[in-house]
Amino acid sequence: MKIWSKKFAAVLASSALALSAFGATNAEAASKKKDSPKNIIFLIGDGMGNSYTSAYRYMQNAPQQQFVKQTKLDQYLVGQQMTYPEDPAQNVTDSASAATAMSAGIKTYNNAIAVDNDKQPVKTVLERAKELGKATGLVATSEITHATPAAFGSHDESRKNMDAIADDYFDELVGKKHKIDVLLGGGKSNFVRQDRDLTKEFEKAGFHYVTDKKALAKNKEDQLIGLFADGGLDKMIDRKSTTPSLRDMTTAALKQLKKDDDGFFLMIEGSQIDWAGHDNDIVAAMSEMKDFDAAFQKAVDYAKKDKNTLVIATADHSTGGFSVAANGDYNWNPEALQAFSKTPDYLAAQIAGGADVEQTLKQYIKLDLTTAEIDQVKEAATTKKVTDIDNAIEKIADSRSNTGWTTGGHTGEDVNVYAYGPQAEKFAGQIDNTDQAKLVFELLEQNTKKKTKINDKKMN
Amino acid sequence: MKIWSKKFAAVLASSALALSAFGATNAEAASKKKDSPKNIIFLIGDGMGNSYTSAYRYMQNAPQQQFVKQTKLDQYLVGQQMTYPEDPAQNVTDSASAATAMSAGIKTYNNAIAVDNDKQPVKTVLERAKELGKATGLVATSEITHATPAAFGSHDESRKNMDAIADDYFDELVGKKHKIDVLLGGGKSNFVRQDRDLTKEFEKAGFHYVTDKKALAKNKEDQLIGLFADGGLDKMIDRKSTTPSLRDMTTAALKQLKKDDDGFFLMIEGSQIDWAGHDNDIVAAMSEMKDFDAAFQKAVDYAKKDKNTLVIATADHSTGGFSVAANGDYNWNPEALQAFSKTPDYLAAQIAGGADVEQTLKQYIKLDLTTAEIDQVKEAATTKKVTDIDNAIEKIADSRSNTGWTTGGHTGEDVNVYAYGPQAEKFAGQIDNTDQAKLVFELLEQNTKKKTKINDKKMN
Repeated sequence: MKIWSKKFAAVLASSALALSAFGATNAEAASKKKDSPKNIIFLIGDGMGNSYTSAYRYMQNAPQQQFVKQTKLDQYLVGQQMTYPEDPAQNVTDSASAATAMSAGIKTYNNAIAVDNDKQPVKTVLERAKELGKATGLVATSEITHATPAAFGSHDESRKNMDAIADDYFDELVGKKHKIDVLLGGGKSNFVRQDRDLTKEFEKAGFHYVTDKKALAKNKEDQLIGLFADGGLDKMIDRKSTTPSLRDMTTAALKQLKKDDDGFFLMIEGSQIDWAGHDNDIVAAMSEMKDFDAAFQKAVDYAKKDKNTLVIATADHSTGGFSVAANGDYNWNPEALQAFSKTPDYLAAQIAGGADVEQTLKQYIKLDLTTAEIDQVKEAATTKKVTDIDNAIEKIADSRSNTGWTTGGHTGEDVNVYAYGPQAEKFAGQIDNTDQAKLVFELLEQNTKKKTKINDKKMN
Repeated sequence: MKIWSKKFAAVLASSALALSAFGATNAEAASKKKDSPKNIIFLIGDGMGNSYTSAYRYMQNAPQQQFVKQTKLDQYLVGQQMTYPEDPAQNVTDSASAATAMSAGIKTYNNAIAVDNDKQPVKTVLERAKELGKATGLVATSEITHATPAAFGSHDESRKNMDAIADDYFDELVGKKHKIDVLLGGGKSNFVRQDRDLTKEFEKAGFHYVTDKKALAKNKEDQLIGLFADGGLDKMIDRKSTTPSLRDMTTAALKQLKKDDDGFFLMIEGSQIDWAGHDNDIVAAMSEMKDFDAAFQKAVDYAKKDKNTLVIATADHSTGGFSVAANGDYNWNPEALQAFSKTPDYLAAQIAGGADVEQTLKQYIKLDLTTAEIDQVKEAATTKKVTDIDNAIEKIADSRSNTGWTTGGHTGEDVNVYAYGPQAEKFAGQIDNTDQAKLVFELLEQNTKKKTKINDKKMN
C-alpha cells in the first residue's frame, strides 16, 4: 500500500530542516573560489564491491598475465564509503537503505525508499535539483522502479511496492511539473497495469514513450520514458539487438537533459551486478561490470567535453562474498569466463526449454568441457528446474575461474568511490554513503547561488 | 642455499639502470616547490584486504550499530593498489613477490626476495636510503626474516631461506656499514644457530641486543636488534606482558632512528593479519588489525609532530576470501568476537595440553555457549590434534559472527593505500604495488638533492 503519494508538499516542507544541517558547510564552501558543477551524473554499480572492480580489470586484460590496462573506473578512484544501514535487525545494508543514504543523506532501515526510520518521506537530491529548475533523469537495467532508482524519485515504506513507486514518478509534482524528465530502464509491467497505464498518462503529459533501442536513439523529445522489458533487462551478453545497453541509455538521457540551461541531475544504475552476485554467477557479474564501466566512460567523456559536469560513481554494498581466487589456489582465471558467450541463466533456460544439454553447453562455452562437467549439467537437467541447471553451469564457471562465494546476500565491506569533474575532490578519502547526498545537496545550492549571482550581474 | 651474499656490490652497480628509469619523473618533481620528506615510514598490513579494514571498524564501534567512529587508518585513505605478481604459474601474489614490488619497484615471481625473474638481486628502497646516509629499520611481528621484511633488507631466490636472509642482514654492507640499524621482531632461531650466532656478531659490531619489552624500552643505542620469539610473536591478545606490541616496537625504533640527521627509512609489518587469514581465524585477524592500527597511529603521531615524515600504509594482498557477513544473513556480529579474550589457537593449545574443554571455552569465551558448540570442540579434542580443536573453535567464532571464508590462501583484490605527510598525495588514486617503491625512490633522491643544496648554501 502506498501511503503518501499525495504527501509530496509535506515532504518538501519538512525537508527544510534536513537542508539547514548543511548550512554552515554551504556557506564555508560558497566562500571558496571553486565553481560548483552545473550538471551532476551519479552512477551506482549495485553490489559492485572491491572484488568486482578488481576482477573486471583481470577480465579486461586477459589473456595477458600483466593486468596493466586500467578500467575506466580505475582512473578516477578517489576513496571508499561505508555502507551500514540504521536498521533494528540488520547491520549490513540492502539497496533501498543504501540508496536512501545516497539520495537523501540519512541512515534508515533496510527496505526504506526515501523514508526515515519513522517512515516519513525525506527529500532527495533529484527532487532538490528539480526544485532548482534542473532537468532530472533516472536510468537503470533493473525495473526503473527498483530500490535504487526508486529512492531517488519516490517515497515508500517498502521497496516491494513497485507499482506505487511508478505512480509516484507520475503523480508527485514539483512546482506543477513531473519531477523526472527522463526515465529509462525495465519494469514495463509496473507502468502498464490493469488499474492504470502510466505510459499513456506520461504520453498525454508530453513525454515520448519508447520500447526499443532504435526508437530510443531517434528520440528528440526532452521528456522521455523508455521501458525495454517487463521486468529487468537481460544481462548485457544475453541482450537482443533491440535492447539498449546502459551506455545507450546514458547517451540518450544526456542528449535530452543537456538541453536544460539550468543543468541536470542524472542517476544511472548498473543494477544487475548485484543480481549476478546474489545468484553467485560470475559470468553475469562480469557482463554487467562491462555494461557499467562503458556507461561510466560515456559519462566521463561527456563531462570532459562539457567541463561543467561532475561525475560520481560508487556502489551501494558488495554482494555474494565474491573473492578473486579461492580454494587455496593462487590463480583467478578470467579466460574461462571469456569463453562464455551467454550467461548460465540463458543456457539453463534453453536447456529447461528442451535444448540438448551437451550441444547447448558447447555452443555457448568455448572450453574443452570434461565429461564430468557435462554430466553434472545433464543430471541437473533431469529436474527440469532452471535453477538447478543454472547452478550446475555456474559451478563450471566457478571451478574453471577459481571464483569463491560466501553468501547469496550482501556483505558489509566498504565500497569504492570514483569522481571526476568540478569539486570531485570533495568525495575523496574515507566517507560515508550519506556524505554522497550531503555533498550533492551542497553543490546544488552553490550552483544555484552562483547562477543567481550571474543573473544579478546581468540585471545591473 | 644462499647464492649471492657476496654479490652486494654488483647489486648496487646493476641498479643504476633501475634508478635511471625514474630520472625524468625525478627532474619534473624536483622542479616543484614542495618539500620531499626527510623520513619515510612504510607500514604493511600483511593480508589486510578491504574486508579486514572494514571489519575492524565494526569491531571498534561494537556494540553500537552505528559504525561512526573511524579507525586510525580510515582517516588517511588515499586510494588502492593492484597486487598481481609476474609469476609463470600464478596470477595472485604471495608476500615475497608483493614485498619485492613495494621495496624495489619490480614485478617478480612468487617466492622471490628482492630478486627479479632472472633471480638477479634488485636494489631496495631501504638499501638506497642507507646509501644516502639515512638510518634504516625493519619491524615485524613475524620472524624478522619473513618474506615481507626480507624483501626490504636482503636478496634471495626463495623466501624459505630464512637463515640466509638473517646472514644478509649482517653480511651485506653499504659503504662498510651494516645496512639495517634497527631490527625488531621474531625469529631468534634464524639468528642463534649451530653454525652461527648472529646476535653475538651484531653485538660485537656495536648493536644492542634485547629480547623483551622492558629491555626494548630501556634501549639507548642507535643500532639495535630485538628478537622476542623463536618464530613469530604471539598474536596480540595472546601475548605475554614481556612481549612488546607492534606499537611498542615502532616506538622503540623511532626513538633511535630519529637521531640520524640525514633522516630514516623504517618498514613496519603487521605480519600476522595474513597468518590469521590463512587459518581462517577471525578472532586472531581482528587482534592483529588492532595491533597494526595502533602502530600506524604511533607513526602518524610521530609524523604530525615531526612535520618532515611521510607515513604510508598498505597491504600486500588480501587473505582467506574473508567477507563481512555470509550465508544469506545481513549481519556481521563483532560482539561475538569481542567475547574472545584469547585466540582459538591459544585455547586449542591448552586443550591439547590436557585442559578441560568446557572449562577452557568458558574461561576465554564470554558467550552463552550451547551444548552443541561445546560438544563440537569436545569431539575435535578426541583427536588430540591442535589443528582439529582450533578449527572447531574457529567454527564457533565464524557462526556467531557470521564470517565467511573462501580459501586458505591469498586473493587478488586491490588493497587500500593510506598516506600522511609531505608528498602523501603522490600515493593517491589507483596505483600499482610497484609504484610504492618507485615513488619512495623518487622522494629519497629529491630529499638528497634538497639536502645537498642546503649544504652548498652553507658552504658559500
